[in-house]
Amino acid sequence: MVGVDPGEALELLKSVSFGRIVFTEQALPAIRPVNHVVDGGDIVIRTHGGAALASHALPPGEAGAGGVVVAYEADVIDPDTHLGWSVVATGYAHLVTDAEEVARYRAMLRPWVSGAKDFAVRIRPQQITAVRLTSAAT
Amino acid sequence: MVGVDPGEALELLKSVSFGRIVFTEQALPAIRPVNHVVDGGDIVIRTHGGAALASHALPPGEAGAGGVVVAYEADVIDPDTHLGWSVVATGYAHLVTDAEEVARYRAMLRPWVSGAKDFAVRIRPQQITAVRLTSAAT
Repeated sequence: MVGVDPGEALELLKSVSFGRIVFTEQALPAIRPVNHVVDGGDIVIRTHGGAALASHALPPGEAGAGGVVVAYEADVIDPDTHLGWSVVATGYAHLVTDAEEVARYRAMLRPWVSGAKDFAVRIRPQQITAVRLTSAAT
Repeated sequence: MVGVDPGEALELLKSVSFGRIVFTEQALPAIRPVNHVVDGGDIVIRTHGGAALASHALPPGEAGAGGVVVAYEADVIDPDTHLGWSVVATGYAHLVTDAEEVARYRAMLRPWVSGAKDFAVRIRPQQITAVRLTSAAT
């Protein structure tokens, strides 16, 4: 693996439209695929049913709301050669509550489930790392 | 999304050779891509440098070693249509320490880094779930 600088990591993340949100649910590690957009330096996802995530990812400024720390991962890895890259961002997640913002993100982000109530969640990366996956033989 | 039964979930996992291990590192959610094999009903991964994972994923029977709970995710998702599937297994991770087993898994699992010390870790799924990702329009 070869490290990649944070700016390039964000560009890699922008180059794809889905990844995986990692959080804690009932004290257990949880992960699910979601769609994302990169908005400025933030990652915004649209997720449904993630009640644990939504209930912890309070809007900024709400009582007790430092938000919840999550990891977000996206990658492009060739299934045969296993070459590619993986980006991991870690930071606080907050519910997007502003109606205009919610509408904007809904238009930008495809949902994976029709009919289900879903949420827009913004992740502000505190740390973003990326690796290029290279062959062990090289 | 459409649910899939656990037997089928394991078959989906067998059909691919890498996924993502989710664990806790310094109290933060961590995730990294790894290669896997399914051995019986267990998932065995080869990981390097995951010192936090390796140090917590004690061999079975060691003092204080219930092991550490991890999640393991693999998916095949079309980058354009976003159709596909995602499997998530949750369970205790244990270091593989038996020399013969380590040698066997090393032969089965490609590493991603040459030269780095790596570990074989066995995950015994307590729970395995899978979803088929379908279009929101259907």
